[in-house]
Amino acid sequence: MSETPVAFTEQDYAARMYRAAREAAAAGLAGLLVTPGPDLIWLCGYRPTAGTERLTLLVLTADSEPRLLVPALELPDAEAAPGAGALRMSAWQDGQDPYAAAAGLLRPHGHYGVSDATWALHLLGLQEALPLTTYRPLTTALPMLRAVKDAHEVARLAAAGAAADAAYQEILSIRFAGRRERDVAADLARSLLAHGHSQVDFTVVGSGPNGANPHHEAGDRIITVGDMVVLDFGGLKDGYGSDTTRTVHVGEPTDEERQVHEIVRAAQQAAFEAVHPDVPCQEIDRVARAVIEDAGYGEYFAHRTGHGIGVTTHEPPYLVAGEQRPLAPGMCFSIEPGVYLPDRFGVRIEDIVTCTEEGGRRLNTTPHEMAIVA
Amino acid sequence: MSETPVAFTEQDYAARMYRAAREAAAAGLAGLLVTPGPDLIWLCGYRPTAGTERLTLLVLTADSEPRLLVPALELPDAEAAPGAGALRMSAWQDGQDPYAAAAGLLRPHGHYGVSDATWALHLLGLQEALPLTTYRPLTTALPMLRAVKDAHEVARLAAAGAAADAAYQEILSIRFAGRRERDVAADLARSLLAHGHSQVDFTVVGSGPNGANPHHEAGDRIITVGDMVVLDFGGLKDGYGSDTTRTVHVGEPTDEERQVHEIVRAAQQAAFEAVHPDVPCQEIDRVARAVIEDAGYGEYFAHRTGHGIGVTTHEPPYLVAGEQRPLAPGMCFSIEPGVYLPDRFGVRIEDIVTCTEEGGRRLNTTPHEMAIVA
Repeated sequence: MSETPVAFTEQDYAARMYRAAREAAAAGLAGLLVTPGPDLIWLCGYRPTAGTERLTLLVLTADSEPRLLVPALELPDAEAAPGAGALRMSAWQDGQDPYAAAAGLLRPHGHYGVSDATWALHLLGLQEALPLTTYRPLTTALPMLRAVKDAHEVARLAAAGAAADAAYQEILSIRFAGRRERDVAADLARSLLAHGHSQVDFTVVGSGPNGANPHHEAGDRIITVGDMVVLDFGGLKDGYGSDTTRTVHVGEPTDEERQVHEIVRAAQQAAFEAVHPDVPCQEIDRVARAVIEDAGYGEYFAHRTGHGIGVTTHEPPYLVAGEQRPLAPGMCFSIEPGVYLPDRFGVRIEDIVTCTEEGGRRLNTTPHEMAIVA
Repeated sequence: MSETPVAFTEQDYAARMYRAAREAAAAGLAGLLVTPGPDLIWLCGYRPTAGTERLTLLVLTADSEPRLLVPALELPDAEAAPGAGALRMSAWQDGQDPYAAAAGLLRPHGHYGVSDATWALHLLGLQEALPLTTYRPLTTALPMLRAVKDAHEVARLAAAGAAADAAYQEILSIRFAGRRERDVAADLARSLLAHGHSQVDFTVVGSGPNGANPHHEAGDRIITVGDMVVLDFGGLKDGYGSDTTRTVHVGEPTDEERQVHEIVRAAQQAAFEAVHPDVPCQEIDRVARAVIEDAGYGEYFAHRTGHGIGVTTHEPPYLVAGEQRPLAPGMCFSIEPGVYLPDRFGVRIEDIVTCTEEGGRRLNTTPHEMAIVA
């Protein structure tokens, strides 16, 4: 079922790096310093084995070509990255001081954006090598750098969403009652992999009272008839994320369970309908929250309404009170209101949505009605 | 084959945190700041879903009880950690400033050790909230904090090593010739999991010229008769690491291949025999390197001789020129010299070794002779 996506080219990576350097300069930064992780993957396609104590650093500035500093042992890997042709590389050897090598690429008084997840070890090394440099987290400095996706990226997110939807459809026909949460979670993980995911990031199965903890994963609790079950799962397919939640019920729900589910469904729908270019992110949160507050459950919705998704399953834009930046066409994010009744049950409904010129478009399309499972 | 290891108790974690705080004070630090990752797992047994943009911070100081600051949503998870009883917890809500909350636990002029892999986002947040605080990477400040393992930890590393050895023994009987490196790597990964690993961190299969890149993983190259093949694999079993390398040959090796393999074997053996308490780490590197240099291959051994292992597969002590700190009983580390002939082949032999009062003890015990595979 899974088609090979359109490959990103060296030109795509060169264009991303050029745009990033230009946006950095416009934000008053001397440049961007990027260490292994999603920013590096997105900017140049290079995914080292792991972030380690050995410094790997991409330096982007408006007035010179992109530079990549790597440990000598990893140079062949870096040279094989799809964006390598757009980079000028240099290497440091074990025993040399990598921060001295990095300092040679930086301005002594520069104010730099640095990847959020850069190790403190490396930031302190740079601060010591160049004591007059200053730094801002990249997500604070350029929060929306990766937030607007191009058409090929949206296509990958849509394919990941379709795969997650297929996994959800499969899970509806399995048995819930009498099984442990972690067994259902394993079924979900297998199904995501079978539908083309390379990586499963989370498979939440929150049954009965466990559903009332929005960060519960899946445990040894035996699911029983009468349980609400929150299913929240996702991962990466062809490098782009999926993340969807549906809340199902084992056997017939009570009137109260139906009512709470309907409130969350209405909140998700209202928030989706509010998606348009130039609407502030916090407005989507406010709309979802208003529905739940008006129904008298405001105190039981204790998390933000959504987060962006791309080469990670958790990134800007954040749909949260205080986030005044506007939505723009190409942004992709979750809308996932919930109600959590302590020690009783929880309900959450989550779709990935992309903002288009005409409004929101869902990348998850399974029904929102509460499915009854066995 | 896999027995349940002795569980670490709340008292074990309390003792680790107490020792860490005391060592920090002795090193002139106001305390230690620990974010999610191996330090946090080792100190209090808490393993949040993932390091994220939401701050989780353990604060250890000599003059107060351990404090853990967590996002409110993750408080139930933190309270379920095995060391939770030894911690005083506080939570911050979405929308609050976590760095202001953290600042309340710190001294405005304090000099703190901070986990190496703490996100720059969080370090910059702390530096902004308390501009007069200063920081050192934890591994620089207290490099050997986790390096000396207690008996239960060594037992877990030995069990992980035995499982990796069992995987190696199994791989010797599979077919190499005509298969892709990544297929052999998948066999290795399955075997590690079958022998009780919860996580596979790497399965290097470097055949022919790919073996000459010490950081090659496993690719599409078809292994053929006449290839040297470097097999380097490991992961975590019951929370502790394995990491072993053997170099095998498909069919009969040439005289040169035998000779290079023998040089590496002799270097590994000499370095192993040099392990004793109070020997400087760099001496182990020097001994291995001398054997290879004396044989005329010095320029083809371009990496350090070893690294520590514990709750990660890569940590202090590092066996590298310049590391003058001494070995001590309970330290566990790899000894892994290699020779890499560009575009031709590579040889590496690696065991995990623990330092005892009497000298080294290998935690990998499969033969070092070059195995001939089909």
